[in-house]
Amino acid sequence: PCDDPVNAELDDETVSDDDVDAGFRGLFTKLAGDDMEISAVELRTIMNKIVAKRSDIKTDGFSLETCRIMVNLMDDSGNGKLGLGEFATLWKKVQRYLGIYKKNDTDDSGTMSTPEMRVAFKDAGFTLNNNIYQLLVARYSDPDMTIDFDNFVACLMRLEMMFKVFKTLDAHENGSIELDLNQWLNFAMI
Amino acid sequence: PCDDPVNAELDDETVSDDDVDAGFRGLFTKLAGDDMEISAVELRTIMNKIVAKRSDIKTDGFSLETCRIMVNLMDDSGNGKLGLGEFATLWKKVQRYLGIYKKNDTDDSGTMSTPEMRVAFKDAGFTLNNNIYQLLVARYSDPDMTIDFDNFVACLMRLEMMFKVFKTLDAHENGSIELDLNQWLNFAMI
Repeated sequence: PCDDPVNAELDDETVSDDDVDAGFRGLFTKLAGDDMEISAVELRTIMNKIVAKRSDIKTDGFSLETCRIMVNLMDDSGNGKLGLGEFATLWKKVQRYLGIYKKNDTDDSGTMSTPEMRVAFKDAGFTLNNNIYQLLVARYSDPDMTIDFDNFVACLMRLEMMFKVFKTLDAHENGSIELDLNQWLNFAMI
Repeated sequence: PCDDPVNAELDDETVSDDDVDAGFRGLFTKLAGDDMEISAVELRTIMNKIVAKRSDIKTDGFSLETCRIMVNLMDDSGNGKLGLGEFATLWKKVQRYLGIYKKNDTDDSGTMSTPEMRVAFKDAGFTLNNNIYQLLVARYSDPDMTIDFDNFVACLMRLEMMFKVFKTLDAHENGSIELDLNQWLNFAMI
């Protein structure tokens, strides 16, 4: 069970600029400022404002690192910031993760216990094994072994990123990738 | 220059329990508590106490993630905590990094600018290329592009960890490693 195969069924649904309704467009314009793009720092402010309003979700705040991973994952244009469509795509994903988080917080504690997290990750499309779960708990849980909302999102976004990297490198779908030291550092230090 | 070869000359000097002098042993006993081991949470408290006393080094505090990486890197026994010798080895490394940080903060700003960081990393034994430097700055710098002490240490410790992982996997020194998805996730999610 430790080495069971791992997999991810991720829906790659992107929202285009044209798909965005007027309300969301107005919100984006207000948040993005003059450059009409949302940076990791701006994203952190937005995320923290939203979770601060909710008493049903525990978090000690989004770190800049988490927000950078979110921006990287969505940043198809590669400019390090999110345009309207990219932000709308991220927004949809965050709403989805929020729903999964709430649904699987069965004791309404505001955080995920380790068993709750396993079901939640399955719901999010990830088939993982014991080794990986233990690694994720060790890295993302608080000292009491629970996972709060910002860590939950950080973990899912990073997982998604790493599945994406593997899939890109394994273009011929051999199930394995070969990396030299430079490539290894480029991906492992993300 | 972007794809120049990367390398690390790391001294693997470990301090054994017997090498530790009485003063350090006393300090360790006080810090480690009943289990005589230092966890990532305890390490964070220790690191933050030390940097809080220094006005010449800027930091917004060590994150639990940084402290986890430090523990992982030093934890030869694999129990997720640091014993006396492991902690003494880490301590030596932190002192070394502190010296390199101070020496290369040529404008005494308390933080590293991007060019200062490049020299500092070279001093620490890392030969990197432009791509990797840009990646590290993007991930570890504050919005004003400077790197404070906790991020400096986090970055060096993670780099060292990733060089170590590569070296372990490339046992025959082919210069490249092959990973399946499970292995990839195990290392990339560290």
